[in-house]
Amino acid sequence: MSAYDDARRAYDAKTKPRGSLGRLEDLGCRLAAIRGFVPDRLETAIVVAAGDHGVADEGVSAYPQEVTAQMVANFAAGGAAINVLARRAGARLVVVDAGTAVPFEHELVRSIRIGAGTANMTLGPAMRAEDVERAFAAADSLVGELEGVDVIGLGEMGIANTTSASALTAAFLEVDPALVCGRGTGLDDEGVGRKVDAVRRALAANEGADPLTALGGFEIAFLAGVVLACERRRVAVLLDGFITGVAALAAARVSPGAVDVMIAAHRSSEPGHALVLDALGLEPLLDLGLRLGEGSGAALALPLLDASIAILAEMATFGDAGVTDAGR
Amino acid sequence: MSAYDDARRAYDAKTKPRGSLGRLEDLGCRLAAIRGFVPDRLETAIVVAAGDHGVADEGVSAYPQEVTAQMVANFAAGGAAINVLARRAGARLVVVDAGTAVPFEHELVRSIRIGAGTANMTLGPAMRAEDVERAFAAADSLVGELEGVDVIGLGEMGIANTTSASALTAAFLEVDPALVCGRGTGLDDEGVGRKVDAVRRALAANEGADPLTALGGFEIAFLAGVVLACERRRVAVLLDGFITGVAALAAARVSPGAVDVMIAAHRSSEPGHALVLDALGLEPLLDLGLRLGEGSGAALALPLLDASIAILAEMATFGDAGVTDAGR
Repeated sequence: MSAYDDARRAYDAKTKPRGSLGRLEDLGCRLAAIRGFVPDRLETAIVVAAGDHGVADEGVSAYPQEVTAQMVANFAAGGAAINVLARRAGARLVVVDAGTAVPFEHELVRSIRIGAGTANMTLGPAMRAEDVERAFAAADSLVGELEGVDVIGLGEMGIANTTSASALTAAFLEVDPALVCGRGTGLDDEGVGRKVDAVRRALAANEGADPLTALGGFEIAFLAGVVLACERRRVAVLLDGFITGVAALAAARVSPGAVDVMIAAHRSSEPGHALVLDALGLEPLLDLGLRLGEGSGAALALPLLDASIAILAEMATFGDAGVTDAGR
Repeated sequence: MSAYDDARRAYDAKTKPRGSLGRLEDLGCRLAAIRGFVPDRLETAIVVAAGDHGVADEGVSAYPQEVTAQMVANFAAGGAAINVLARRAGARLVVVDAGTAVPFEHELVRSIRIGAGTANMTLGPAMRAEDVERAFAAADSLVGELEGVDVIGLGEMGIANTTSASALTAAFLEVDPALVCGRGTGLDDEGVGRKVDAVRRALAANEGADPLTALGGFEIAFLAGVVLACERRRVAVLLDGFITGVAALAAARVSPGAVDVMIAAHRSSEPGHALVLDALGLEPLLDLGLRLGEGSGAALALPLLDASIAILAEMATFGDAGVTDAGR
């Protein structure tokens, strides 16, 4: 019997009408299926990877590139949204510098710098094939170190990375960039126009190239590597918003079975995110109009995962409690 | 300046693009507006009220009436879903016996028994006017004792109470019972047919009567009283599913301003719930196909409320963190 069936049977024995906790029960069954057993409690971590993007030169972000490294410093100091939300959710937070333009040395930041920001993808490939390989290897090491963790939430930080993610979505799903590009951290209409134009030029400049290498970023490649490592190690991956969704899509192009370890935390307000979730066949848990990134949506969904397992571990059965079971 | 504006301004100063936490920010602003100040942290409680319904005689539930008292015993023993979920959410749990058919004495159960179950509403009024008054007074006392609590989540237990709630919805909103009645805890099509029929007969038997008195239940009247007391004391009320939504609707008919202290936790799978939420003008936080009641959806939404306030209390501002503010 599978762990999925074990979990389903355990929910059915609890003192509540069958299936009355709706998607919470499906979630617990999926977590059990991913892990291969029904966990007693969930050990959780959030991995936030930061990287800079050469395409920021094209004026595609509301914020200057220096903000990427400033926010890594903010993560290290504990003052960012993801620090607060990971703490509330009881999740370990791992901050990774995958390649910011300006390095930020700190004992709480894991440095796996693939470079000092990617090249401008409108002029040619953003990365080299060996960059992606190094990112995948670094991700595998990290996931290996997180032994015993049941769920890894993904987060990212990188000025202009919605432009990279938009280009990847357009390339992977063969959709018009105008249908993918959104306001990111707060672009006006003119800014969105520049972003669409930059994506079109990037696609033209990199025709026929491997999308992740040519259009991705160091943090996106790293996060795709985390997904692949989680598939190998049967760890659940909790996706955040658009960027982490695109990283997951890139992973699924490398290994289609990776989809089986994914859980979508939320539906972001970036238009490309809905396309990515559809392509992955994932229905998100939350729909709160979030567009921050950093893993904030993943952290907000973690209590639902936690609750799904707590129900299995802590609730009485009909037998325990002497409650009459209608059997349905 | 209002507490709502204080909260909005505080969110805008935090190291994230303006509004990028979407509905989480609206939630924190609403909590501040309800309380009249921006709380440092949320003190939360869940009040679960149980009552029996004479209409259970009409075969409108998948479970026998004895289950109401059995579940109160399960709440007292800590084995029900709401025990697990309230504990995970850090909320105090208050179990109220508002009038089960079989009393259950326990130090952890607050007994405010209005009667031993209501009368069968298909034959005449379920309650008397003084029952509703007693329920309101008992609710006011409880909310008075919960001083310092910022949010009260509502929960209920009562075999056949979706039938009572369906009759109230049909009466308050003047809609056909067939559009309101759902499967409750697991009725088949035939059972739903009996439920629609019972509601039609109850409406006919009580034409012109006060809906809450004639069609309600002890736990529903008590919960409506909790809402009214929360309005008076500026405490936020977190609604659970269909039954608590109907209790809130009954409260809003007594005092329309009560809507201002309500927050909808989730959209349940009962068809009447969507009608009630629309009538109250509330957009729920979660949509997970829950249909358990007990306050389970409210408990699952509490971490979102908690997070909305934690962001205000714990996150760094642009000034604190030395992060460049794009001002949007």
